[in-house]
Amino acid sequence: MTKQLTFKNLPHKTIERLSQYRRALLLCLSNGKTHIFSHEIAKIQHITSVQVRRDLMLIGYSGTLRKGYNIEELINLIGNIIDSEEGINVAIVGMGNLGRALINYFTGKRHKLEIVAGFDTNPDKIGNRFSGVECYSITELNKIIKQKDIKVGIITVPADQTTETAKTLVKAGIKGILNYTPKPIDVPDDVYLEEYDMITTLEKVAFYVKMSDE
Amino acid sequence: MTKQLTFKNLPHKTIERLSQYRRALLLCLSNGKTHIFSHEIAKIQHITSVQVRRDLMLIGYSGTLRKGYNIEELINLIGNIIDSEEGINVAIVGMGNLGRALINYFTGKRHKLEIVAGFDTNPDKIGNRFSGVECYSITELNKIIKQKDIKVGIITVPADQTTETAKTLVKAGIKGILNYTPKPIDVPDDVYLEEYDMITTLEKVAFYVKMSDE
Repeated sequence: MTKQLTFKNLPHKTIERLSQYRRALLLCLSNGKTHIFSHEIAKIQHITSVQVRRDLMLIGYSGTLRKGYNIEELINLIGNIIDSEEGINVAIVGMGNLGRALINYFTGKRHKLEIVAGFDTNPDKIGNRFSGVECYSITELNKIIKQKDIKVGIITVPADQTTETAKTLVKAGIKGILNYTPKPIDVPDDVYLEEYDMITTLEKVAFYVKMSDE
Repeated sequence: MTKQLTFKNLPHKTIERLSQYRRALLLCLSNGKTHIFSHEIAKIQHITSVQVRRDLMLIGYSGTLRKGYNIEELINLIGNIIDSEEGINVAIVGMGNLGRALINYFTGKRHKLEIVAGFDTNPDKIGNRFSGVECYSITELNKIIKQKDIKVGIITVPADQTTETAKTLVKAGIKGILNYTPKPIDVPDDVYLEEYDMITTLEKVAFYVKMSDE
């Protein structure tokens, strides 16, 4: 397990990029490509080829000068690093438009990462399936999380329910949270948290558009 | 306008954080708070207070040792930097769950940034309003973008339509694009691009959950 321990120290940004490389590589593979150069990956990702080579060196992979990287090999290697062998089950709390969009989006994309339950308070949604994912009552959260061995929770509830939802997830034993609401949350040290606020990204784009005008 | 030119060179990450600070400050203000210390902002944002002070120094703002920062003043200052005086109009292309979620999410949150049109190919959606935003046919995109002076486009179409949609937006004169599809795009140098792939974020959370298990 010493190798795994090394990967544990990979920079956060490298992990993100490995996931992005794999996405690009899967696309290339489905187009019949077998090998790829670092500068080709770089172009797709809008980064430098030095960055690509540095990331792949960190995971101990190098291509050949003549043909570049073997796409299938690299996809498998990234999978070995990022994916959990037995797979990781995910739940979505909040089955509004965003929750349902995420389910549509993920379904069938990564077989080692599966959304296995949705939760909501709306009786019209509870008991229904959305793109194959059953929606349960939030009151059953604790039970279902344990029953289905769910490790990651995605929060897509209205902002005023964010704090409560995060607490419930942590209490149920969730180990990773992705918070898509505009309300920042706090989690214990042993829970990994990612927060994404769409307003921030839109404001950033708007800022650079404004600046290009001046 | 020399001051504006200085802001143009603010690091991308600082722009993101300023937007996040404002969000946190608006929340504090609505709770009746008038002043705040850097370490309080830092705690909400899960960063260090040194980072907060450095960002605010970059925009020329400093608080008092005793009371900290004046929240209302700071909100206004950030607004002067990030927001465009006349406001920026935004369009969403792809009125599926994600497009509609974004509309719900943004509506009324920032008065200088407004989603003024949605586009889709589905005849059941065209002509309808979603949270007050009219959905037009994609064939009218060019006309509506010009008519409504839309500067930013958000892409939420299915992945196989991403490239075509981006081309149409650029051709219509859009200056900033936010791509929420899993397919990376290319834009000319004078168009600002942000891409966000939800799978990447979820894979990152799953990776750290897996690592904490080992």
